[in-house]
Amino acid sequence: MAPPAFVKIPEGLKPAGVSGSQLLKIERQKASFDSREMAEYIHGKDWLDMQARLLEILENDPVFDKSSDFYLSRTDKFRRAMLKDKRLAQLTHEHNWGQTEVQVAEKLADLPGPFGLHKSMFLTTLYNQGDDEQRKAFWEPAKNYEIIGCYAQTELGHGSNVQGIETTATWVPETQEWEVNSPTLTSSKWWIGGLGRTADHAVVMAQLIIHGKSYGPHPLVVQIRDVKTREPLPGRTIGDIGPKAGYNTTDNGFLLFDHVRVPHFNLLARFSKVEPETGKYLPPPNSKLAYGTLTWVRANIVRDASSVLMRAVTVAIRYCAIRRQFADKDAPKFDEGGRPLETQVLDYTMVQIRLFPILAQAFAFHYTSQFMFDLYTRNQANIESGDLSLLADTHASSSGLKSLTTLYASDAIEVCRKACGGHGYSKSSGLPDFFADYLPQATWEGDSYMLSQQCTRYLFKTMRELKKDPSRVDDNLTKDYMMRYLDNRGEKASVKFSGDLYDPLFFMKAFGHRAAYLTEQALHLRDDAKRSWNSLLVELYKCSRAHSQYLIVRNFGMAIYKDEKLNSKPALRQIVQKIFLLFACHTMEQEGADFLASGYIDGAQFHLLGSKVQEIMAELRPNAIALVDSFAVPDYLLNSSLGRSDGNVYEALFDFAIREPLNSAKWNVDINDMQTTDFDSDLPRSKL
Amino acid sequence: MAPPAFVKIPEGLKPAGVSGSQLLKIERQKASFDSREMAEYIHGKDWLDMQARLLEILENDPVFDKSSDFYLSRTDKFRRAMLKDKRLAQLTHEHNWGQTEVQVAEKLADLPGPFGLHKSMFLTTLYNQGDDEQRKAFWEPAKNYEIIGCYAQTELGHGSNVQGIETTATWVPETQEWEVNSPTLTSSKWWIGGLGRTADHAVVMAQLIIHGKSYGPHPLVVQIRDVKTREPLPGRTIGDIGPKAGYNTTDNGFLLFDHVRVPHFNLLARFSKVEPETGKYLPPPNSKLAYGTLTWVRANIVRDASSVLMRAVTVAIRYCAIRRQFADKDAPKFDEGGRPLETQVLDYTMVQIRLFPILAQAFAFHYTSQFMFDLYTRNQANIESGDLSLLADTHASSSGLKSLTTLYASDAIEVCRKACGGHGYSKSSGLPDFFADYLPQATWEGDSYMLSQQCTRYLFKTMRELKKDPSRVDDNLTKDYMMRYLDNRGEKASVKFSGDLYDPLFFMKAFGHRAAYLTEQALHLRDDAKRSWNSLLVELYKCSRAHSQYLIVRNFGMAIYKDEKLNSKPALRQIVQKIFLLFACHTMEQEGADFLASGYIDGAQFHLLGSKVQEIMAELRPNAIALVDSFAVPDYLLNSSLGRSDGNVYEALFDFAIREPLNSAKWNVDINDMQTTDFDSDLPRSKL
Repeated sequence: MAPPAFVKIPEGLKPAGVSGSQLLKIERQKASFDSREMAEYIHGKDWLDMQARLLEILENDPVFDKSSDFYLSRTDKFRRAMLKDKRLAQLTHEHNWGQTEVQVAEKLADLPGPFGLHKSMFLTTLYNQGDDEQRKAFWEPAKNYEIIGCYAQTELGHGSNVQGIETTATWVPETQEWEVNSPTLTSSKWWIGGLGRTADHAVVMAQLIIHGKSYGPHPLVVQIRDVKTREPLPGRTIGDIGPKAGYNTTDNGFLLFDHVRVPHFNLLARFSKVEPETGKYLPPPNSKLAYGTLTWVRANIVRDASSVLMRAVTVAIRYCAIRRQFADKDAPKFDEGGRPLETQVLDYTMVQIRLFPILAQAFAFHYTSQFMFDLYTRNQANIESGDLSLLADTHASSSGLKSLTTLYASDAIEVCRKACGGHGYSKSSGLPDFFADYLPQATWEGDSYMLSQQCTRYLFKTMRELKKDPSRVDDNLTKDYMMRYLDNRGEKASVKFSGDLYDPLFFMKAFGHRAAYLTEQALHLRDDAKRSWNSLLVELYKCSRAHSQYLIVRNFGMAIYKDEKLNSKPALRQIVQKIFLLFACHTMEQEGADFLASGYIDGAQFHLLGSKVQEIMAELRPNAIALVDSFAVPDYLLNSSLGRSDGNVYEALFDFAIREPLNSAKWNVDINDMQTTDFDSDLPRSKL
Repeated sequence: MAPPAFVKIPEGLKPAGVSGSQLLKIERQKASFDSREMAEYIHGKDWLDMQARLLEILENDPVFDKSSDFYLSRTDKFRRAMLKDKRLAQLTHEHNWGQTEVQVAEKLADLPGPFGLHKSMFLTTLYNQGDDEQRKAFWEPAKNYEIIGCYAQTELGHGSNVQGIETTATWVPETQEWEVNSPTLTSSKWWIGGLGRTADHAVVMAQLIIHGKSYGPHPLVVQIRDVKTREPLPGRTIGDIGPKAGYNTTDNGFLLFDHVRVPHFNLLARFSKVEPETGKYLPPPNSKLAYGTLTWVRANIVRDASSVLMRAVTVAIRYCAIRRQFADKDAPKFDEGGRPLETQVLDYTMVQIRLFPILAQAFAFHYTSQFMFDLYTRNQANIESGDLSLLADTHASSSGLKSLTTLYASDAIEVCRKACGGHGYSKSSGLPDFFADYLPQATWEGDSYMLSQQCTRYLFKTMRELKKDPSRVDDNLTKDYMMRYLDNRGEKASVKFSGDLYDPLFFMKAFGHRAAYLTEQALHLRDDAKRSWNSLLVELYKCSRAHSQYLIVRNFGMAIYKDEKLNSKPALRQIVQKIFLLFACHTMEQEGADFLASGYIDGAQFHLLGSKVQEIMAELRPNAIALVDSFAVPDYLLNSSLGRSDGNVYEALFDFAIREPLNSAKWNVDINDMQTTDFDSDLPRSKL
């Protein structure tokens, strides 16, 4: 339910000039393609139907009403999120939703709640790493919410470096138990989602110590709270870690163990095991299999990055088509009464150059996430038939792409917010909280800067092997562009005129050449100049970035060539090809120094890129609103007064303002009186 | 007062390994210079003494205690800010503080409050634009807080374009009054600081209409609330505009007028006037004089940008010296017990490349803000003796510098936050709220992208005139670098080895050449290719940016050559020179495409810049902690568990966590029960 209105606005006032809804209508008529058809091409009809079905359910259930969220304190927001998570669990059961429906419903509800990690990491780990008996003992009750869990890996002093965690699980042969302990303050589990106030069980990553010998981090199930009373069990110190930039509807928690005993049974034993009688450690058969799941998780992250860009840029582009600022002195326009009209902000090239490339990135990441899901499926099939040849390339590329796309996406939200001018700063724009909630993506599942090293390590390995004996290297995209480079290091771009910039193959070759060039340069420093790994981190990051950009350009380019669904719809193909060109030219211009410094392009060619970008932006301008419409982000998800599909921006801003709780009280401004609300206030006086 | 602790932590636990406080001690011993001496060089001894004096007062007054702020709802935070603003007013009177003391005290208290705009824009406008009688009637009571005001310019539909505001003040000859009116929804005053719940008076910018003719926006004083009852007066609709990304301790408000009458006297009349008997409009004698004040405001903004960088990078560098992650495989270190030691994160070059350039920018902006204050003083003196020759250059440069430095600074806070890894996301790091509160700087006082056009318009004008007849152009820095370029367009950098990159003059020449080159290119498109202004906005922005970067490099470089205070202290000079080189090389590398594309440098020279950056970062590393110490940002202002000068990071994170109010309740996680806190909770059940 929306909070009450505390201020009454005079009736009959309208926004000046052409209304937002009229403007969007005009914009939509300008499109060269059908936005519903484009939406079906991007998302598929089945997915759009499913989204509509879920939306119908959520929008009609008061638990999922969003109209009060921006005004609540953290405690009240957390309460809302818990109610919402309970209701989602009920609905999942009621409608028998599968994994995709649950994911989409959670995305739409958009309030990351206390059961989030229970549903993802806790259940997944119990299922994947528990043996049959453990699945029965832990996974089954967890699936039915009879126990609620969390995944306790990160520690106060230990994030990315899992090997360095301090929590120990020491084998007690006498009782055949594990003794879980936190030896220091920094060994406290920290940041664990759902741990603070919610979970009664935890999968705890701890250093396994048997007969004085350490076997590295392993997962154990530890009960932490009484399921009925919710009190922490003896030896566990638990709490929420306090307010964060965002994600405050999740109770990230801390957890200290004081010599807590759990039975032998609680060490998850699908892969590595310990013999209860002897304490003998039996290692897992193949440690690389886990990489498959990682690729899947990262494909999801890249898809999320695409949908984050879609959401942010929908808000900004719609609002910039409604917002007007300054008359155009070179080409003035007038309203019906002959008064000078201010220009739509979206007509300013300085606004376009900030927003249209983000629109293009949304498409680009979309194709790359499809590529990753496809790769994941092929790779899993290969693994099952014993073929590990795709594994390393898949894993390396997924590391680089996770790193690149999450940094892009978090920056892009803020660019969109700034492009909305002052009103972007209002929470009612939807962008500030969206930004704050998205930020952890660049840190979790591997800090984006750390992770890129895994990608470059593989690039180095491949380049080294190719220089020795290419015939012994498995075929894949990386080998492909590196071989092309090694065969023709001195290659130069052949474009002379803006019109030469149209062929996806040109950009694929250019980005492949650059990725291989940077890798060879960095490898030279490592292998020949014998520079230390740590002194080369900046170069390593650039290699991973260049490789990932190559993949994104390549996957987008291949869609232009080969996507049959696209090629059967000329109106769609024409516009998507323009978007590809914008993405490729703009990215190449942004990274221009690399291409110039290697001699691949010269100054004149560099300037061609900039002109081409502007040329395509002008062509895209009439289609801008139809393009964001085709992203099919519902108003319910946007939750933005600026991004509304009906364009009634100014009415929405007022409606948001009058419900602000501050407006419910009169405040005492007398500087000599330290009481703040003397006048019939219904606000409680602060205790602080 | 800090909120109570809801969780008890077991006693005796310590962080693993060397403690944070010990680590910072070791770091401080490595410095090649005295950080107190550097602090005195940067800030001056008088300023440091004043900061210490103010700190003593604020830290010992419970009204300024910050320990509860991160946990409060908006309403409670607003109450805190109002108390704080009242107490600041009392202290200002008590201690007879001048403008600088008030500014510094407000910065230290760091809670932008409801009286902020009263103290700045309201008082300033009344004083500068009111005639003697108006000063007496309005400014004097306002100065004594007998009336509280706000500055109502921006409207819901009108930000940067002040000429486009819709509020009207129509002359009523019969009664010699102004009738103030809001004809539309978009004409509502919006974003006005202190208006929402606090102000009883407003300076209202309205289109002056006399006998049917419009004279553009003018400031009028309008009473809006009853001073005693705090009720809005008839015809005024007022409220707070609702929660924002930050700045929630200020009540930004909206205001609609329904044909409100004020007397003739209320039009501020120091410059333009209206004759009460005839309604005749008398324009101001010289409209350019106001630019002086603008320069002063922008010099303040550039200085703030510098101190924002200092504050953010102090947090990140200190924490990265304490945080350890992964052992160095190339050069492993061991603790006293022979266990492998993880590397201090600050030793990673990928962390250095993100933080050290920000440290260098803080120095760079510091010198440029000094330059601007100096320019302001010289310019004001000139104006008083009738010499307007400096005006245009000063105004243009201040526009470009405001634009560039605020965008840099807001990005830098987020870079620092990311460099702190997961813990940067906790509010206790101090960075999330700091970022959110700083963001408006890039939008207000002129949107940074819009504003840059004013700079480039001047650059175009100067370039055009120089090509016609240089002798008729006044001497200034812009003429200087443009003439140098026009005399030698084909100039090329002469550096061959890394050792050649040491001379500030080289960088000044390079940045000057680039700024002139970009200006000439863009001017060619405008004047010869007859491109429209709006189609060139991207190029215009690049010119302003290049000009501003030239100024920053130039001002920093001149300090290395000529700053006597610096040159009398060899230990300081040595380190500041390195910081200059880092700033210049890194900026040049970042903007490398421009220098490469114009042919000023080639690929080999470009790579030299990157190597030089890494070489200097390694040299700066041992001085990193001493350098941030020399910024003299007190712990009270940092308000950060990660940036504390004593290094006790992990203890502080725990102390922050245990006070989180969520921890005061037990939560009911039963998915079939929609009650959330069944168990002896002391949290009020939400009404929503």
